[in-house]
Amino acid sequence: MRDANCVFCKILDGVIPSTKLYEDNDFAIILDIGPATFGHALVIPKNHYANIYEMPEEMLSKSICLAKVWGEKLVKAFHADGLNLVQNNGLAAGQTVYHYHLHLIPRYDGDGVGDLWTPGSLSDEQRKEILEKLA
Amino acid sequence: MRDANCVFCKILDGVIPSTKLYEDNDFAIILDIGPATFGHALVIPKNHYANIYEMPEEMLSKSICLAKVWGEKLVKAFHADGLNLVQNNGLAAGQTVYHYHLHLIPRYDGDGVGDLWTPGSLSDEQRKEILEKLA
Repeated sequence: MRDANCVFCKILDGVIPSTKLYEDNDFAIILDIGPATFGHALVIPKNHYANIYEMPEEMLSKSICLAKVWGEKLVKAFHADGLNLVQNNGLAAGQTVYHYHLHLIPRYDGDGVGDLWTPGSLSDEQRKEILEKLA
Repeated sequence: MRDANCVFCKILDGVIPSTKLYEDNDFAIILDIGPATFGHALVIPKNHYANIYEMPEEMLSKSICLAKVWGEKLVKAFHADGLNLVQNNGLAAGQTVYHYHLHLIPRYDGDGVGDLWTPGSLSDEQRKEILEKLA
């Protein structure tokens, strides 16, 4: 299941080169070519799913179990101080390749990446509005 | 399985108030009180696991399957333009509560959060170093 215009499909087919850390029947783990930090890697399903909404539960589960094993492996190998898992859906969320992928970002004290977002606040009015919209 | 000093355990026990969106035997979904954006929520296991490394595979899988269902629900209810899933491990990664949680961050065009990180580059030397350290 490939998308002819997808960069990750081309990487998985070997048409575009990549640095592969791991591979099985369903997934590959490669280095991100625009890393946030040293060792930033991506868990990518071999089938083309555009985003989390298209991922079957079994594939989704497998992606996060691989993220656990490989996240720990990266942290140990690079003596990292932390680990972020990030998965983006949609341009507004920073998704640049429309093929599901899970970022494994080893973090280091003083790595300059800082907090991924600035915490805001939650007013009673917003809380009420959220609950109403979900009702 | 609770940690007496854990804020999330206290929330799950109802000792500290929260806005609960969902609950089953294993998980709760609550609103983040320091939201990045409107509707920012957290998927939290009821048992106390400090981070992803302590999460059993079954719980980990369930957390991301819930994130898929609820992420889509939030995006639809709030007419969001995107969705980030983020899971932090360790202080260096921005983890503030040492009880595994998966952030569901609905994203909106022009929400001011911007990219979660700035892409760097990957030199041939770094690539080589990474592969050597993982070998």
